Amino acid sequence: MAQSWPTGDAIAFGGDYNPEQWPRDVWHEDVALMRAAGVNLVSVGIFSWARIEVSEGVFDFGWLDDVLDLLHANGIAVDLGTPTAAPPAWFYANYPEARVVTRDGVTLGFGSRGAVSPSAPAYREAVARIAGALAQRYADHPAVVLWHVHNEYGAPVGEDFSPAAVAAFREWLQERYGSLEGLNAAWGTAFWGQHYTAWEHVGAPAATASVANPAQRLDFARFTDHQLRACFVIERDAIRAHATQPITTNFMATECPTTDLWAWAGEVDLVSNDHYLTAADERGFVGLAMAADLTRSVAGNRPWLLLEHSTSAVNWQPRNVAKRPGEMARNAMSHLGRGADAIMFFQWRASRSGAEKFHSAMLPHAGTDSRVWREVVELGGALERLAPVVGSQVRADVAILWDTESFWAQDLEWRPSVDARHRERVRAYYERLWRDGRTVDFVQPSADLSGYRLVVAPASYLLRLADAANLDRYVAAGGTLLVSYFSAIVDETDAVHVGGFGAPLRDVLGLTVEEFQPLRAGEHAAVAWGDELLASDVWQEDIKLAGAQVVARNVGGPAAGGPAVTRNEHGDGAAWYVATRLGIDALAPVLEAVYADAGLTPTNLPSDVEVITRHGDDADFVVAINHTAEDVKLDLGDGQELLAATSVTGALDLAAGATAVLRTDQRPGGDRPV
Amino acid sequence: MAQSWPTGDAIAFGGDYNPEQWPRDVWHEDVALMRAAGVNLVSVGIFSWARIEVSEGVFDFGWLDDVLDLLHANGIAVDLGTPTAAPPAWFYANYPEARVVTRDGVTLGFGSRGAVSPSAPAYREAVARIAGALAQRYADHPAVVLWHVHNEYGAPVGEDFSPAAVAAFREWLQERYGSLEGLNAAWGTAFWGQHYTAWEHVGAPAATASVANPAQRLDFARFTDHQLRACFVIERDAIRAHATQPITTNFMATECPTTDLWAWAGEVDLVSNDHYLTAADERGFVGLAMAADLTRSVAGNRPWLLLEHSTSAVNWQPRNVAKRPGEMARNAMSHLGRGADAIMFFQWRASRSGAEKFHSAMLPHAGTDSRVWREVVELGGALERLAPVVGSQVRADVAILWDTESFWAQDLEWRPSVDARHRERVRAYYERLWRDGRTVDFVQPSADLSGYRLVVAPASYLLRLADAANLDRYVAAGGTLLVSYFSAIVDETDAVHVGGFGAPLRDVLGLTVEEFQPLRAGEHAAVAWGDELLASDVWQEDIKLAGAQVVARNVGGPAAGGPAVTRNEHGDGAAWYVATRLGIDALAPVLEAVYADAGLTPTNLPSDVEVITRHGDDADFVVAINHTAEDVKLDLGDGQELLAATSVTGALDLAAGATAVLRTDQRPGGDRPV
Amino acid sequence: MAQSWPTGDAIAFGGDYNPEQWPRDVWHEDVALMRAAGVNLVSVGIFSWARIEVSEGVFDFGWLDDVLDLLHANGIAVDLGTPTAAPPAWFYANYPEARVVTRDGVTLGFGSRGAVSPSAPAYREAVARIAGALAQRYADHPAVVLWHVHNEYGAPVGEDFSPAAVAAFREWLQERYGSLEGLNAAWGTAFWGQHYTAWEHVGAPAATASVANPAQRLDFARFTDHQLRACFVIERDAIRAHATQPITTNFMATECPTTDLWAWAGEVDLVSNDHYLTAADERGFVGLAMAADLTRSVAGNRPWLLLEHSTSAVNWQPRNVAKRPGEMARNAMSHLGRGADAIMFFQWRASRSGAEKFHSAMLPHAGTDSRVWREVVELGGALERLAPVVGSQVRADVAILWDTESFWAQDLEWRPSVDARHRERVRAYYERLWRDGRTVDFVQPSADLSGYRLVVAPASYLLRLADAANLDRYVAAGGTLLVSYFSAIVDETDAVHVGGFGAPLRDVLGLTVEEFQPLRAGEHAAVAWGDELLASDVWQEDIKLAGAQVVARNVGGPAAGGPAVTRNEHGDGAAWYVATRLGIDALAPVLEAVYADAGLTPTNLPSDVEVITRHGDDADFVVAINHTAEDVKLDLGDGQELLAATSVTGALDLAAGATAVLRTDQRPGGDRPV
Repeated sequence: MAQSWPTGDAIAFGGDYNPEQWPRDVWHEDVALMRAAGVNLVSVGIFSWARIEVSEGVFDFGWLDDVLDLLHANGIAVDLGTPTAAPPAWFYANYPEARVVTRDGVTLGFGSRGAVSPSAPAYREAVARIAGALAQRYADHPAVVLWHVHNEYGAPVGEDFSPAAVAAFREWLQERYGSLEGLNAAWGTAFWGQHYTAWEHVGAPAATASVANPAQRLDFARFTDHQLRACFVIERDAIRAHATQPITTNFMATECPTTDLWAWAGEVDLVSNDHYLTAADERGFVGLAMAADLTRSVAGNRPWLLLEHSTSAVNWQPRNVAKRPGEMARNAMSHLGRGADAIMFFQWRASRSGAEKFHSAMLPHAGTDSRVWREVVELGGALERLAPVVGSQVRADVAILWDTESFWAQDLEWRPSVDARHRERVRAYYERLWRDGRTVDFVQPSADLSGYRLVVAPASYLLRLADAANLDRYVAAGGTLLVSYFSAIVDETDAVHVGGFGAPLRDVLGLTVEEFQPLRAGEHAAVAWGDELLASDVWQEDIKLAGAQVVARNVGGPAAGGPAVTRNEHGDGAAWYVATRLGIDALAPVLEAVYADAGLTPTNLPSDVEVITRHGDDADFVVAINHTAEDVKLDLGDGQELLAATSVTGALDLAAGATAVLRTDQRPGGDRPV
Repeated sequence: MAQSWPTGDAIAFGGDYNPEQWPRDVWHEDVALMRAAGVNLVSVGIFSWARIEVSEGVFDFGWLDDVLDLLHANGIAVDLGTPTAAPPAWFYANYPEARVVTRDGVTLGFGSRGAVSPSAPAYREAVARIAGALAQRYADHPAVVLWHVHNEYGAPVGEDFSPAAVAAFREWLQERYGSLEGLNAAWGTAFWGQHYTAWEHVGAPAATASVANPAQRLDFARFTDHQLRACFVIERDAIRAHATQPITTNFMATECPTTDLWAWAGEVDLVSNDHYLTAADERGFVGLAMAADLTRSVAGNRPWLLLEHSTSAVNWQPRNVAKRPGEMARNAMSHLGRGADAIMFFQWRASRSGAEKFHSAMLPHAGTDSRVWREVVELGGALERLAPVVGSQVRADVAILWDTESFWAQDLEWRPSVDARHRERVRAYYERLWRDGRTVDFVQPSADLSGYRLVVAPASYLLRLADAANLDRYVAAGGTLLVSYFSAIVDETDAVHVGGFGAPLRDVLGLTVEEFQPLRAGEHAAVAWGDELLASDVWQEDIKLAGAQVVARNVGGPAAGGPAVTRNEHGDGAAWYVATRLGIDALAPVLEAVYADAGLTPTNLPSDVEVITRHGDDADFVVAINHTAEDVKLDLGDGQELLAATSVTGALDLAAGATAVLRTDQRPGGDRPV
Repeated sequence: MAQSWPTGDAIAFGGDYNPEQWPRDVWHEDVALMRAAGVNLVSVGIFSWARIEVSEGVFDFGWLDDVLDLLHANGIAVDLGTPTAAPPAWFYANYPEARVVTRDGVTLGFGSRGAVSPSAPAYREAVARIAGALAQRYADHPAVVLWHVHNEYGAPVGEDFSPAAVAAFREWLQERYGSLEGLNAAWGTAFWGQHYTAWEHVGAPAATASVANPAQRLDFARFTDHQLRACFVIERDAIRAHATQPITTNFMATECPTTDLWAWAGEVDLVSNDHYLTAADERGFVGLAMAADLTRSVAGNRPWLLLEHSTSAVNWQPRNVAKRPGEMARNAMSHLGRGADAIMFFQWRASRSGAEKFHSAMLPHAGTDSRVWREVVELGGALERLAPVVGSQVRADVAILWDTESFWAQDLEWRPSVDARHRERVRAYYERLWRDGRTVDFVQPSADLSGYRLVVAPASYLLRLADAANLDRYVAAGGTLLVSYFSAIVDETDAVHVGGFGAPLRDVLGLTVEEFQPLRAGEHAAVAWGDELLASDVWQEDIKLAGAQVVARNVGGPAAGGPAVTRNEHGDGAAWYVATRLGIDALAPVLEAVYADAGLTPTNLPSDVEVITRHGDDADFVVAINHTAEDVKLDLGDGQELLAATSVTGALDLAAGATAVLRTDQRPGGDRPV
């Protein structure tokens, strides 16, 4: 693995670099400061279309030649972007039909971050041309070690209802269903009299009098993802025709609802991700860990690039909280611990103008006499010392199901309760596992699960029959499964499963769901867990047992007295079902029981101390992060602490807010008990 | 009455039946289960346009023939729908100009529940064609006992700003006003310089820079109602040209702001209603009773059909709370007690696909081994035992004014306070009367009021001079009237009455209102009622007394010390005025005094036990419903309890959550004291 | 000054008069009642376009002749409006291209308060024609003493995205920047790839995928203001071609974000203002004082006209709270004390119809037997006694910076915190000064500040380098400056200042800002002020001191321990910086220290008693207003109380809710200590 890494044996470190925003004398200051900070990779050209293709088909590569030469001369490698996320003003003017149209029929114009229709033929032609031209010119430039196609596909807009999109959707449907009969069946058009008798009557789910057909909307989500990905493939292939460097595009794991990353990961050479903290979330580091784990998971557990994160505040949230001293390093180390071999930022130098002038940067408006700059330099040094980590891998005993299509379907209108949210449940179960020191992979429900001791399904609303059978086989073969409510409700066409709610999991769970019992807004109930009462809310169910044992029952609420937690032995394994919403604290005793069932031993980590191991060819690297304001001691084994370059025997002292990377002897997978 | 009831001597029981959603083998299971449940009437074809008129003018009746034959063979009668609420895809494609345009100019497309412009000539032609074709084919089919035109007129959209609507609005105005002078006067166009000099300048109140002319908007509401009703009349007449069965359409009493049911009731042969609980309202059974009373009232106190309600949860509210055991029966009995001789559901079998797959049904996704199914079967049995009730009538001593035009006018922008809401006041007074065991009719302010002991006007913002005179005559002749604040403010053109606020009621109330005194958000005050302080908020007034006696005064608030409740003797009667917002509890002592004034004796019902009487030709049927978790005893007289088929002497035992129907000797109108 | 006042030696008193809403017999009643109330000026014709120009180019002046003659015959002068805020229906029909288009592409139609595109050539032609025709006819009418152009420019809509606006914006930009290079530099188009290569690609910042270029939006705000003002100038010049009376238009100081009143004031002969209380604000009288002070300030401290306020409630707020007894007089006296020599209302007689029928009036719906009418008559009498005040002036020791462009810029998207609001900060500092009895001018940051002891900059986000230098010079010359956070961040193109946040004020403040530290929603901190803890929230900063002394530090929050309040001696003066949000109470001790620094002595006014002095040629007029429910005594010097016409020696007794105007000997400027 390591030999093909864009920065060779080194962890990549750097950020987006936009020299076109600055006079040339600043470029030289930039490069000198990059060297001072240990920057070895920068992403260039991401929004530069208008400066490269100055009018249709007319190219000006001069300034970019100079930038790449200057960087190369200073030993800084380049991740060269295709600028197709920012079509120039002339493109909008020449091809008004390529503009995005919203669901309500508003046409989106030029003057923001670019976004045009991924279905527009003119756009597809144009991106092939610019990507090809760049590749032709820079295929052999020694600075270029990586291609960066486009930027954050799916943002700032995903769905598009332009005439081009409607036409393309119709074609996509013809391809998918072959016949109108197939379409009518899949969309259940017998409901509300939506039967189609001609392909030309089929359209996108734009503004309608009441809610649109949910299967149509689900297909439109699939189509939207497909169209974006098709644009990526066009660019990738245009580059590949000339160039041999790896090609990537920056994902937004957990944050971009219009892309199904499992499908995207198969198209890129290396997986990359952008991640930003949610400022309102005081435990944003958990969300970060989740995004990093998801990124690694879609990358097939191979190292990946963190292409963007922030040195401090962003600018696009309601209240853009700045990072506190040490927080950037903790964030970076968590990404690294979870598989990132590149730690990159948006952006190198803060922009004076434009919509993101208040976004932090490696070099802030305050200049080099600033906390942020000092921490950037310090991080650069730390990453140099962590070069041995490159190429090592993460192993997990626990998997969480992540099925983008299920999330798309659950997000549609008219579900039983607006409080039943997949995002909330996935985060709750993930955070419970995080707090319990569990290393987690995300997997699709069709994945080979045999390597996991525990599989958690927090929100599998849409579950194909074949995937349900996969879960069944996993448990029968000895696995432990935990399923949360509102799972296995519909098939891939958003049709309720024959046999009722949960029917495909009837055998493995030993139950089906007779009726949902959503709670009213603000209504509370509890679960009787031994002598303890665990607070619950949002959801209960009337359960029809078919073999499962009732582990705990509802106290209060519409299903008072009914099963809240069940366990079913199935083959050599066991399947748990949680039929109500438990918060992260309330999940603790439940998961404790499930861990025991799955043979997972306690990790005994201090609260909010994060420990994760990367397994190398001949050593392990234990990354430890103290998110608290208290110093702690951790017994992670003897080894070499790489950041301070000290030997550790016995307990590792980890100061409040500090991070450490301990190189130890190899040990088998599984989280380390402390 | 009874002889023309669609199901003869039986209470109708069944639901919407959509066999086109299922393979034919399911049809046979359906019919067998219908028989098992006692279903005797189903509504068919409501969303089937695309399956009947497969392309413009080309009909396929085969499957519908089979369905009707199958139902008839099993003794199940049919309420045959015209499918005009769901124009097919081909209609949208052939007549794009018939699409609804929103106030902001968004054109609503196909793919949801159908909704096209009721003003579009193409739509009117098409509905006449399909309704006529159905009537021609099935006029003599022995299964068909009722015609069900369209579905819930006014939903999911009412107002339409398409060019067709604008043209029709102009014609409607020419008809209404004859001349531009009349229009200018009625709309008060001298304000804000809106004087019209040509008919072609007159349009619909679409998006404008600030609020639109309120009289124009009020007329547009009238027009919208008129256009929808005109579409009904077209279909009705197309059916009547061939068929003799009664014709209905399903209203949404209290829930559809775009239809004036008083006008609609005059066009249908039988009044029908759909009702769904508001899940967020823990006292939704009161709203149900109100809707049922309104339905009966617009039906002229004749029995009516409950064409849709739900066996359990719906799917289109934010949190779709399921009904608890027994709740469906209580709901059904309340409808029946208030005049319904048909208890029908949406829908027979839960849909696997589409927007309403999570709507409950008589046959739920969980199948027949389910609470819902068992309760459906039980209800079917109960209704069979209640056949003697068919055709009996409800009598009320109290009337509440319900003037749809007044509500339309009050809902417009720029009223004195957003907290002064007609809906809230009507419900508050209704619920006070409900809790006090009063049977209530709703009446228009122009109605003959002489039969009522008490008339309540909770929200008569718009009150015509003639209607004010009607109230005056009612009181002068000995009636008791209670008027709440913000009444008699404007005339039918939304112009403030000459003489100031409340001037048309000056004689009867003995006062006018000098100035409104809205309270700030969250501001509270009180009313001194004897030694008691009744909590008040939202509204006070500076009142100019002209003969009325002050019964109680404001404590706190902007009109502190001023009159809050007054009483005025007028002729042989008395009129009360309540000038502030009192909650349901605070209204209790006020209404107690008003009842005494009106000669209404206390009913002494236990809290939240509902009792209502239907008066038959030779017996009374006292419906009793216990909404509480406590068993109660009720002394309703001796008689025969029909559900359990037992004799009752002395007290009736009514268990927690239970219902009973006591057949007793006849007694004069009026609520029974317990 | 006094000799050119429209009503000569008298304070103008009256309101908008709309006789076209009433039959002619009412006109005679109107005039008689006006005389009874002491009305000497009415505003006529403001919404009368459709009644004057009955079709394009065809005029009917007959009724207006009669109205003016009738008023003149009764000694009532006329402020004659041009009706261009209400284009007639025929204008909309003839010139559909002149309609306003919203940012999302919705075209706004007729039927509300008129609003068409100020950029439309047809509109500009039409307003010149009607204004010229009116001036030609009435230039010499003896009733006409003032011209009232249009109505509240910028309301109800300001920005317009019609094709006419886009074309005009492009021309305006060409004028402003000369070249595309200039435009690209000013807009920072290198960010997000927005570089322009042709003028025809440049458009308005209409709907885009993400946020639009902020510099483009700022320019569009400037352009919008410019277009509105250009329309005023067209009308003014059309009038001036015929007539010699002064010309005004009614501003909406503090309430109209689309007009930059500093620029407007230079175009009018007399400054006028409309003001309405915010009903939800229980201290609305402070907002009133601020609006009045701003109006006087843009008028260059010359007397101005209050052209509209309300006798009681308005109709367009969510809850339209009525004024309490005496409140109208207190409001009027506060305007008068702050420089108004005209006290006018919207409107004379309450409209029966239309959108504002619930707006209070001088003559309410309740007629003359009403509190409002009695108070109107009383106020008319009081103003007659205050004639000596006409022409006297207000002097202030304190100035607050008010830069409309800065506010426009700060209102754009993606600022560090949605809680950092200029409006809130300006009001907070203003109210602190109001409570402390300080008379305040508003000034532009480029103004000559030498006359002020203290200058406060609550929200100078956008601060030009030249203006920063002006502040620097002011302090160096001995002035005292107080700057609040988020100031001096960007230049006139919304680009961050070179040198970082606050760099242009580095010398004068003795610091720059390294990083913003916004707090989370609901998060609280404090400032250690001596032994006191002052509550703070919303904002803190990491400050880089460069000479300033730390006066107080943050306790808690992200910048805990860092500077919260600093003071820097600079030349002969001192500059204070407040780096966190302090509420009005918490500001008290800080301002107390600042006052001492500035040599401002305490005023010692009782709480919520307002005292302000107008300085005449040979006397002072001290206006005192008691906003409390307690009687107070004030020692304002000996003199003559004009309202009660009594002599005052020693203390003035000011009853709860009362007002007084004390004529005293002259004294130098500065607020009077009590």
